Amino acid sequence: MKIVLLGSGNVATHLAQAFVAKGEEIVQVFSQNLNNAKILTDGVGGEPIDDLAAINYTADLYIIAVKDDAIESIANGLSLVNGLVVHTSGTTDLHTLSSKVKHAGVFYPLQTFSKTREVSFDQIPLCVEATDDIQLSILRNLALKLSTQVYQMDGNQRKVLHLAAVFACNFPNHLYALANQLLQQHQLDFEIIRPLIKETADKVMVNLPENMQTGPALRADETTLNKHFSMLNNMPELQNIYQTLSDSIKLMPK
Amino acid sequence: MKIVLLGSGNVATHLAQAFVAKGEEIVQVFSQNLNNAKILTDGVGGEPIDDLAAINYTADLYIIAVKDDAIESIANGLSLVNGLVVHTSGTTDLHTLSSKVKHAGVFYPLQTFSKTREVSFDQIPLCVEATDDIQLSILRNLALKLSTQVYQMDGNQRKVLHLAAVFACNFPNHLYALANQLLQQHQLDFEIIRPLIKETADKVMVNLPENMQTGPALRADETTLNKHFSMLNNMPELQNIYQTLSDSIKLMPK
Repeated sequence: MKIVLLGSGNVATHLAQAFVAKGEEIVQVFSQNLNNAKILTDGVGGEPIDDLAAINYTADLYIIAVKDDAIESIANGLSLVNGLVVHTSGTTDLHTLSSKVKHAGVFYPLQTFSKTREVSFDQIPLCVEATDDIQLSILRNLALKLSTQVYQMDGNQRKVLHLAAVFACNFPNHLYALANQLLQQHQLDFEIIRPLIKETADKVMVNLPENMQTGPALRADETTLNKHFSMLNNMPELQNIYQTLSDSIKLMPK
Repeated sequence: MKIVLLGSGNVATHLAQAFVAKGEEIVQVFSQNLNNAKILTDGVGGEPIDDLAAINYTADLYIIAVKDDAIESIANGLSLVNGLVVHTSGTTDLHTLSSKVKHAGVFYPLQTFSKTREVSFDQIPLCVEATDDIQLSILRNLALKLSTQVYQMDGNQRKVLHLAAVFACNFPNHLYALANQLLQQHQLDFEIIRPLIKETADKVMVNLPENMQTGPALRADETTLNKHFSMLNNMPELQNIYQTLSDSIKLMPK
């Protein structure tokens, strides 16, 4: 497949590398910053461009991997292409594309990407959606080349999944960072808490989290909850988080 | 070493199994419920007892692994023993024991235990503290038999670590459960989000979490934050958590 990539950020970079590794061809990389496009084409091949007027009209697939609020304007520049145009956003409607281009779809990889960290796509859930069954089938087959976990879902489900991912990834990572803040204040290294973080995640690989909850809030151990609360007297923000999440744990059905 | 175990819960069970696997001897298990003591001694050996008056006075080590608020009354029953008496609590002062018994210490394993899940102690941080250097050395050597990660720390540091563990384990697990609540409401299986949870934890095994944050709050992406917020209009509790944690992410130094 001949692929044009629109975007040069984390998702664009990881997707391009994964496609090339599977034998697909990147024919162009578009970025508003030509240098960023060049950095990516240096690694994966193709022509770097910074002008949508220079877009190749004969590619099979156009992947828009840019910030959500830039998707629509890029789609405007692709109204003449015949290939399938997809975006990689968890929160953007398929309609944002299908109202502008002939064949539209969504190719949403559910993962947290950092440029400095290698990811293997094998285990990354890929969520696909398309305007018709033929395009959907093209997209599914392409997704299955990268990953064993391919899910077809509608836009509403995808948005819920994106929101759930904030709860399951962004928020836990922030809580790790707050834990580290506490540790550092008392000359304790983050290293000491890593096995606990790993085990907490490992547990829910084979169990449901609602069955794995532990800690003072679950036990309604008010003595410990009060001790912790007073330890945070000088950190009202952490105290508020502690209270909010402990209250929520108490409300969970047992 | 001859060990008397006071308690028959998760921590007591896992510790007993780990000690026996390393060739130590469990001479007694005390529980207020004799049947619970028997269940444990059936697996690890020793005499089950439910009366502190029947305690063996010649053991080397007495491990109090009970709920925090029961530690003091158990310690009262051990005032005549010569061996080292330790508790396994993250939040209880050493003084709670040292005011009652001759030789006192703390042996706090930093991990989340479930009875149904095997744990390997090799990688579990063990935090030790004792009333004097001789007892501390005994405790360190014993801990090193179980784990490569043995930390000596004072009670204040241990309490901070316990609090940090709530942020790094109990709260993230609860957020996984809330994510699952969202998924289930829309016929999505928890399976789909497991790779994301795993990668989020894996990332901080080799990086610091403050450098690994991703998501709409970090990018101050108000469009997405507002979309998510309205999706939670019918779930005020989750909406409150979403707002509280997003605000906190925005406040983190970049």
